[in-house]
Amino acid sequence: MHEITSFVRAAVCEVFSTMISMDESYPENANPPWQVCGVIGSVSFTGKMSGVLYLAFPVTLANKTTDNILGEESSRPSEEVNDVVGEFTNMVTGNLKSKMADRGYNCKLSIPTVIRGQEMTLDSAEGNLALTNRFTASASGEIISTLVFARLETS
Amino acid sequence: MHEITSFVRAAVCEVFSTMISMDESYPENANPPWQVCGVIGSVSFTGKMSGVLYLAFPVTLANKTTDNILGEESSRPSEEVNDVVGEFTNMVTGNLKSKMADRGYNCKLSIPTVIRGQEMTLDSAEGNLALTNRFTASASGEIISTLVFARLETS
Repeated sequence: MHEITSFVRAAVCEVFSTMISMDESYPENANPPWQVCGVIGSVSFTGKMSGVLYLAFPVTLANKTTDNILGEESSRPSEEVNDVVGEFTNMVTGNLKSKMADRGYNCKLSIPTVIRGQEMTLDSAEGNLALTNRFTASASGEIISTLVFARLETS
Repeated sequence: MHEITSFVRAAVCEVFSTMISMDESYPENANPPWQVCGVIGSVSFTGKMSGVLYLAFPVTLANKTTDNILGEESSRPSEEVNDVVGEFTNMVTGNLKSKMADRGYNCKLSIPTVIRGQEMTLDSAEGNLALTNRFTASASGEIISTLVFARLETS
């Protein structure tokens, strides 16, 4: 297992710890292209480590998480949910950035963006690291995934 | 119209000029979230200009463009098409990066990734520039879109 995988697992657990109780995570070895659906935040990074981290929520869990943070609302605008998913993705990627900086792989983060859809696939060019993890929300059994494409500078 | 919009228009025309003949482009004023579908390359950037550029191809045009570059093939693996779309996105974003550097907005590019799907939406947090352009391929009338979320550092 690549070191980045364990850093991402720790990052997700730390960021979500006060918000959603998470059961065990398990890394997947499936090669991209990866199937995803729901509400997917992404934050890119450049530097000694270059790439992108996606954080994929099922729509229902994205809505529930937003309710937990902003208070329940019957007709929540999807933009508010996108903001929350983007911010979680930012926090997880920021946590990974800090752990990788301790290993000498400094990077800068780009702005968070959010994609929504059903039956999407994510791919990157050959030669990049491609690492995925799944986490189960204890209460509902819903699954959050992280998907990382990264290239490390080896100079 | 923001300067970045005209830079992106020029970037697309320059990158595609030897490959696909393009008719007029037209910027759109629609606010995000934006609807997209097909094969969508994305390249992020960080620095004085931070954000992401998406280049959205209809599937048929992505396949035809790949045929033009790699030679026709009856059963083309989608990974090869993804590589071509990723590389075009890289070239367009690199062209924009160079034009923005001339204006003092230096940035570094991340790795290209590719998303495929139907009925997807793209969104970013409030406060970021959100610029979109459409281009028509002369031969087929198919439409390529660019979508940019960006934040400029104003120090």
